[in-house]
Amino acid sequence: MEFKKEFTAGIIIIGNEILSGRTVDKNTSFIALWLNDRGISVEEVRVIPDKEKIIIDTVDELRKKFAYIFTTGGIGPTHDDITAESISKVFNQKYQYHTEAYQILEEFYKNENFNEGRKKMAKMPENAKLIPNPKTFAAGFYVENVFVLPGVPSILQAMLPQLDNVIKTGKKILSSSIDTNLRESQISEQLSKLQDKYKNIDIGSYPYFKEKPGTILVLRSTEEDLLKRCEEDVKKLVTSLK
Amino acid sequence: MEFKKEFTAGIIIIGNEILSGRTVDKNTSFIALWLNDRGISVEEVRVIPDKEKIIIDTVDELRKKFAYIFTTGGIGPTHDDITAESISKVFNQKYQYHTEAYQILEEFYKNENFNEGRKKMAKMPENAKLIPNPKTFAAGFYVENVFVLPGVPSILQAMLPQLDNVIKTGKKILSSSIDTNLRESQISEQLSKLQDKYKNIDIGSYPYFKEKPGTILVLRSTEEDLLKRCEEDVKKLVTSLK
Repeated sequence: MEFKKEFTAGIIIIGNEILSGRTVDKNTSFIALWLNDRGISVEEVRVIPDKEKIIIDTVDELRKKFAYIFTTGGIGPTHDDITAESISKVFNQKYQYHTEAYQILEEFYKNENFNEGRKKMAKMPENAKLIPNPKTFAAGFYVENVFVLPGVPSILQAMLPQLDNVIKTGKKILSSSIDTNLRESQISEQLSKLQDKYKNIDIGSYPYFKEKPGTILVLRSTEEDLLKRCEEDVKKLVTSLK
Repeated sequence: MEFKKEFTAGIIIIGNEILSGRTVDKNTSFIALWLNDRGISVEEVRVIPDKEKIIIDTVDELRKKFAYIFTTGGIGPTHDDITAESISKVFNQKYQYHTEAYQILEEFYKNENFNEGRKKMAKMPENAKLIPNPKTFAAGFYVENVFVLPGVPSILQAMLPQLDNVIKTGKKILSSSIDTNLRESQISEQLSKLQDKYKNIDIGSYPYFKEKPGTILVLRSTEEDLLKRCEEDVKKLVTSLK
């Protein structure tokens, strides 16, 4: 499948904890599935460290390449949280308190100490628009086509639906999985012919090695009828090879 | 921490299944931990689709940037497995049967049909050196500083130790985790001062939100004594804030 640029996205995972191997990134999968439902295809993911120059260069490169960019990580209260300030520099905007974000946090922390670290979470590029955080109140934000989300998966997952009316949606990307008992190498030649027949369908082939080896075939397309026809052909092929 | 180029690596995850969100990538974490034990720091990860031009451009860009590049995925028998041929093009080498890789597969499949799909798994750049596969026999390979591994985690994990004597190792990257009951925003100001004091230690701060919120602090360094001193200071800080 080829997508028009307006239905493409890139994801930038900002965080040493992913690069060090300490944490397995689950945000890519969640964001990608959410976008696919809205007809948007994730074309590239980058994982980069908490270093200002790298964040600025990467965001600046990818925001021109794809319609939407999602960043995760680096918007908390600590010294290694430098995403918001870096994004300000990408857009040559002042990095300052966002009035509404500040008020939300002030309200939330009223009985506790609203300290510098907590205030920092209200600092954003001057023209940032908020992405409300129904879970822990420190908001994300977006500037133009760059959407800045936290790294903690449960918070990110609560925030993403807030963007439902912000993202321009395309035709939902449908998928169909067929689990076969065949080894990948038993089916590869015939499958290649089916891929040639159905050029507008992505046919993916994913072997597994449990008690018995097998292969999961995944068909993806925005065209429902075509997908069904392809699925029937694949099932016929699988039956013929058993 | 800053690493000399000779102790840096990049990872390229090749596969539509990661970009579509269907599969969570676990290979980055495994490779990064393995490299950290050998004193090598992963500086960047890219996830890209099974498209030839993108594979060629990405590998060519990153192999110059870092000492080691690891690719995962796209070396199986099916139509979407185009990594080996793409790597041949990166190095301007013929894409052809590797004699030893071919013999290993021929031996393994002797009682079955050694078909085109299976033979394809022995095709590599002409000067490729094998990375033996003790699990399913289809070998990986490397050319110069580019190491080409499969996408299936269990097979990748069996193959990586085969590279023990190939990778030049540095000082092991040590890490220490301290689980605190503090919110990140309670500790951020003091922690920032500690980071200023210990410039050669990466101090990461990772909040969690379970029944009670808390923060895991992770210290990373190649210097054991320094790491211990920093750990003591962090523990004192945590105690003082409770």
